[in-house]
Amino acid sequence: MSTQIRTVTVLGAGVLGSQIAYQSAFKGFAVTVYDIDDDALAVARRRFDTLVATYTAEVPGGEEGAATALERLALTTDLSQAAAEADLIIEAIPEVLDLKRQTYGKLAALAPAKTIFATNSSTLLPSDLKDSTGRPDRFLALHFANRIWASNIAEVMGTAETDPKVFREVVAFAEAIGMVPIEIHKEKAGYVLNTLLVPFLRAALELVAGGYAEPGDVDNTWRIGTGAPVGPFQIYDVIGLRTPYNIMVHGDEEAQQLATWLKTNYIDKGKLGLESGQGFYKYM
Amino acid sequence: MSTQIRTVTVLGAGVLGSQIAYQSAFKGFAVTVYDIDDDALAVARRRFDTLVATYTAEVPGGEEGAATALERLALTTDLSQAAAEADLIIEAIPEVLDLKRQTYGKLAALAPAKTIFATNSSTLLPSDLKDSTGRPDRFLALHFANRIWASNIAEVMGTAETDPKVFREVVAFAEAIGMVPIEIHKEKAGYVLNTLLVPFLRAALELVAGGYAEPGDVDNTWRIGTGAPVGPFQIYDVIGLRTPYNIMVHGDEEAQQLATWLKTNYIDKGKLGLESGQGFYKYM
Repeated sequence: MSTQIRTVTVLGAGVLGSQIAYQSAFKGFAVTVYDIDDDALAVARRRFDTLVATYTAEVPGGEEGAATALERLALTTDLSQAAAEADLIIEAIPEVLDLKRQTYGKLAALAPAKTIFATNSSTLLPSDLKDSTGRPDRFLALHFANRIWASNIAEVMGTAETDPKVFREVVAFAEAIGMVPIEIHKEKAGYVLNTLLVPFLRAALELVAGGYAEPGDVDNTWRIGTGAPVGPFQIYDVIGLRTPYNIMVHGDEEAQQLATWLKTNYIDKGKLGLESGQGFYKYM
Repeated sequence: MSTQIRTVTVLGAGVLGSQIAYQSAFKGFAVTVYDIDDDALAVARRRFDTLVATYTAEVPGGEEGAATALERLALTTDLSQAAAEADLIIEAIPEVLDLKRQTYGKLAALAPAKTIFATNSSTLLPSDLKDSTGRPDRFLALHFANRIWASNIAEVMGTAETDPKVFREVVAFAEAIGMVPIEIHKEKAGYVLNTLLVPFLRAALELVAGGYAEPGDVDNTWRIGTGAPVGPFQIYDVIGLRTPYNIMVHGDEEAQQLATWLKTNYIDKGKLGLESGQGFYKYM
């Protein structure tokens, strides 16, 4: 590993936070996982057990390394302890601006000067948060995708104040934990992946909501026309329909109409995507 | 075959016209190919020879059937003869509105009442052409993709005047020649595939032209994040950069700026995509 980072703290052991923590431990890092109370940590432990099973079955090296990765994970509800020794703190707490700002305000006092702060926020820009960190030069976004072991991209995006050395250090860390780092040179809402996905999914929904074509035909067209394994409506079902709904309902007038259509025809009927057993397709 | 169509005429033996004609013959139809002069037909013959080689190598059943498909192809420069017996005429002549209207005007007189007319136009709507056909109820769009033997979608799109029986007949024909028919219920510029591709490719170009990310990183993100075999800049290179340029240069102000960026940084430097040996990637 060419990274100087040795100890990593992950704040928030939700779906993605637990994956980030586990993947880092699996790749040999000492990882401290912070969440707000013992109940949250109990949920985290169950997530880690599931990840051991998944990595054992699906990930190269998992049969040997998946269980021992647990030994490199320490769980705590003490923010002071979580911050004390970290070379890098990856923040993956809920997407609430004030909560994140308060947390960075506390970290600013608790973490040593060396510590790099990275936010995994999908919807906020790092510049929304940088002033609360007390160290904007050592702060940036490090954005992961769900199913980190398979969808192994890490989008790295600083603000104008991020030290280029810190940026490179985090890129090296991303590589060290098995990610393909995606370097974003300037702040961009949605990073790269969602900048591509959002208009693509919207165009697909316009075709169906507008009565032009059926979801299955749209997906067939994309799969056959581009060789992709899945079409846009299969992607909707995997993501879950509420996430694109929440994006579109805050968009322009046309996007709001699409959001309403999605709500009326799918969400209100309990068709939320793969997890609910039905979305644009049935999965039972 | 559940289609009533037996004899097919293809007007225009360009890249796609020759593929449509050959694929139809390969699947057992008697096909007449019309082009404007003997030089055009000589080019067409060479295209058919290339297709025989491609189908022999790549297409199931090609080893037995690719050469004999040629026996079902008749070439002519006589429009009257081309139209006389056709159950279906597929028009794949250049994308020039007046030329297409004139051609349909002639066909209206030359073809028997039974003949269905289908345009392969990518950029015109069937309603731009229907009045010149003299038979708007027997006219629609049947739109193919390049490399028809692999990218086997056929987008079927009528006008409000297209007889639903004719629509279904053409859907059945598309299936009979090995296509996956994509039924489009109302006119839509760009059909399904380009309705998805255009905003997707534009969003990718915005990331690179805006200085946010490099083409290789954008492609990595899409491939890893969605499992697709190729990213947007690989698609640009395959399509060739002049086609998206020509679409964007007629778009809104932002699209025009992207077109200018593409021209200055790539097209003016001879980087036209795969066919020129270099586009966003090098191929030599």
